[in-house]
Amino acid sequence: MSHTRYAFIISDRTGITSESMGQALLNQFSHIEFKRSMHPFIDTVEKADKMVDIINQAAAESTARPLIFSSIVDKDVREVVHQSNGLHLDFFDAFISRLEEELQTAASHIVGNIHGITDEEKYHARMEAVNFSLAHDDGATDKEMRKADVILVGVSRSGKTPTCLYLALQYGLRAANYPLTPDDLGSTDLPRMLKPFKNKLFGLTIDAERLHHIREQRRPNSKYSSIENCRSEVREAESMFRQHGIPFLSTTHKSVEELAANILIETGIKRRS
Amino acid sequence: MSHTRYAFIISDRTGITSESMGQALLNQFSHIEFKRSMHPFIDTVEKADKMVDIINQAAAESTARPLIFSSIVDKDVREVVHQSNGLHLDFFDAFISRLEEELQTAASHIVGNIHGITDEEKYHARMEAVNFSLAHDDGATDKEMRKADVILVGVSRSGKTPTCLYLALQYGLRAANYPLTPDDLGSTDLPRMLKPFKNKLFGLTIDAERLHHIREQRRPNSKYSSIENCRSEVREAESMFRQHGIPFLSTTHKSVEELAANILIETGIKRRS
Repeated sequence: MSHTRYAFIISDRTGITSESMGQALLNQFSHIEFKRSMHPFIDTVEKADKMVDIINQAAAESTARPLIFSSIVDKDVREVVHQSNGLHLDFFDAFISRLEEELQTAASHIVGNIHGITDEEKYHARMEAVNFSLAHDDGATDKEMRKADVILVGVSRSGKTPTCLYLALQYGLRAANYPLTPDDLGSTDLPRMLKPFKNKLFGLTIDAERLHHIREQRRPNSKYSSIENCRSEVREAESMFRQHGIPFLSTTHKSVEELAANILIETGIKRRS
Repeated sequence: MSHTRYAFIISDRTGITSESMGQALLNQFSHIEFKRSMHPFIDTVEKADKMVDIINQAAAESTARPLIFSSIVDKDVREVVHQSNGLHLDFFDAFISRLEEELQTAASHIVGNIHGITDEEKYHARMEAVNFSLAHDDGATDKEMRKADVILVGVSRSGKTPTCLYLALQYGLRAANYPLTPDDLGSTDLPRMLKPFKNKLFGLTIDAERLHHIREQRRPNSKYSSIENCRSEVREAESMFRQHGIPFLSTTHKSVEELAANILIETGIKRRS
């Protein structure tokens, strides 16, 4: 018998919501090691039966009861999982009956969203935003820069591209980005291409040591990646942001999700999807 | 007094988890109209106090009690929100004490993840994946195609690019994509560039009417966007997938999240982040 504490994360859909729920809860017990596994699309009694076999086998092999985090809309499927030999925490179980009581109406208990016209519109907004962000990556063109919701500005490798893509995919925003080159940084003036859009600019900065580390992987032992150059580029970029009143954030200790959410709050831009 | 049913979604972090939780629950009551608002980064008692003012004002204006969905780790902050005049459903409230009991240890109640070395590694994996996917978008290059975890194949506008980017951002996968052109579709043979990587291919298809609609927005009244051309391209692409045993999915009714999660399951590829 092992002491492994299994954690099963089960969903009737993609599992992205239940995964972040499960991880958020487990992160609250960071001193315990869990053996985590994800099981999306468990949406029939048959699939749930097989799931229970897997859970019960884990339960039989370990001295510790498995944990089961689930997000399953269908009551019958949920009930099957509930019969397994583990501690079962289901997200709908916890909330849906309290909501039914409050709203004095029954929940639909139907899996998935209704794919109506709103969804298609949102989908288009997202696709368009992604295409826009790709076309305006790395200062590629200023053709339709005026259509951008936000323009991220920062030195090479400061995290502009993934942040733009996340803003587009998650919030449907048209996010362009512009890399500050050594030429731009020589002057305290804003780069020519950016001048007409000063109120759309948002700066990204990064710890010089971290930037050095990232650039070294790209071009080892180059002037580009040297710690001296990284320090001076970061210093000059930040001083440009301050001089022109451009809000900015450091990407050093933030995930793309956090950066995107922060940019939304600080700029007050409304999401499109 | 209005009959508006307000729904406040509150989080001490980015709000992405609590948003998908709240939306999933509200979607179960699709016949009711809710006035939803998101409130990320509510992580101090002061911010929670202001939040309560907003909630109580909404409560005073409406005959229906506001709903409050929250994900707040800090007990004191949570307690403040709990004093508002609404139905408060907190995610940690619902689960953390049952977990503490099961694990016989106290939760840390600290907001956020620990940004340790693992996070930095994951971050690098993601960044690398995003850069790879950008470099290998739209069959741009086959230089390092062998390093791809998966290569999405489909006709123009079938949804390859956003799906690739999502696979990279969410799962840290190196996802390339290759557009099937009319030249490729004339033959039952696999395109030359793809032949060496047959086991990495995953097809995307789309409803011809939908494709027509999407392409019309790009090039109205063109051969490219005509319904006849869309029908024949889709038919030929699907027949290529079948002939070569390439697994494929339709993007017509699926979100990028669903597509990405399905591709992961069907291919058995392991995520890198």
